[in-house]
Amino acid sequence: MGFWKSLFSGSETSSPSRTTQVEAHATDGTSDRSLSPRIFFSTEREIDLYELEELCDAVGWSRRPLRKVKKAIQHSFLVVTMWEQRGVNRRLIGFSRATSDHAFNATIWDVVVHPDFQRKGLGKALMRQVIKKLRSEDISNITLFADPQVVDFYRGLGFMSDPEGIKGMFWYPD
Amino acid sequence: MGFWKSLFSGSETSSPSRTTQVEAHATDGTSDRSLSPRIFFSTEREIDLYELEELCDAVGWSRRPLRKVKKAIQHSFLVVTMWEQRGVNRRLIGFSRATSDHAFNATIWDVVVHPDFQRKGLGKALMRQVIKKLRSEDISNITLFADPQVVDFYRGLGFMSDPEGIKGMFWYPD
Repeated sequence: MGFWKSLFSGSETSSPSRTTQVEAHATDGTSDRSLSPRIFFSTEREIDLYELEELCDAVGWSRRPLRKVKKAIQHSFLVVTMWEQRGVNRRLIGFSRATSDHAFNATIWDVVVHPDFQRKGLGKALMRQVIKKLRSEDISNITLFADPQVVDFYRGLGFMSDPEGIKGMFWYPD
Repeated sequence: MGFWKSLFSGSETSSPSRTTQVEAHATDGTSDRSLSPRIFFSTEREIDLYELEELCDAVGWSRRPLRKVKKAIQHSFLVVTMWEQRGVNRRLIGFSRATSDHAFNATIWDVVVHPDFQRKGLGKALMRQVIKKLRSEDISNITLFADPQVVDFYRGLGFMSDPEGIKGMFWYPD
């Protein structure tokens, strides 16, 4: 539990830069930290779109035109990426973004964690970064639309479905 | 039905300007159109915030800091207002706005119609303007969060609640 504890407590500290580093201890017990993988979060938007597409492919999402993905990233209020660094190699292992009116409401979209890194608490860590950033921008209403299989995941992070009977709705063409 | 038919068919035509005029025939049967009230829709963002506050007061919404309302309007992807014009007097009778990533998703917020103008089909007309504008910008995923008492209203406009089990969720602080 030591690693995740330090990861989460690390994610609670304020960061003046666009990158938050949290340290992942190697599970093989090595004491040489220079060889240990590290997990980074970043709000930098200069993302290799092909690397992002690869990440989305890995979880089975339908491909989307990169031109539109680029536009969506540009016009998102917040983008948070999660990286694994081993030595000089950096690998994109998670992504999330939010639209917002910059004042009251934000809606989180495209939350993805690479299958190799799922079930390790990293999805929660990524979402906590997103929530922390939105709260730091004084956004009071943080919303999302959850697929049925991840409703419990978001519930564990403090999200409520249909509070006071409010229903998420999607428009379908006639 | 003649008025609403022409109003709705008017709302289907593309408008190069930021204002769409639809004509409301007076119900007293007068043939002098210059004296008839007219309904306008506009995407202009230069809105008198006090007039908007008055509209929101009329439906019993909690007041919000005008500084934040201004910021939210500025950073919304789309703002659609509805106006009644009688002679030279223009009155704000409806409002709606949407956040978006400008590419895939939009979320509609703050839909309001003045009580004096409810139950006349004007809420539907306003929403059709919003949907039409979002579709014209190639937004495929139009979403909203509906209070229980307006779920059927949105259903009548083509919105589905919880499609494929997708749940709207709101984050609550611990």
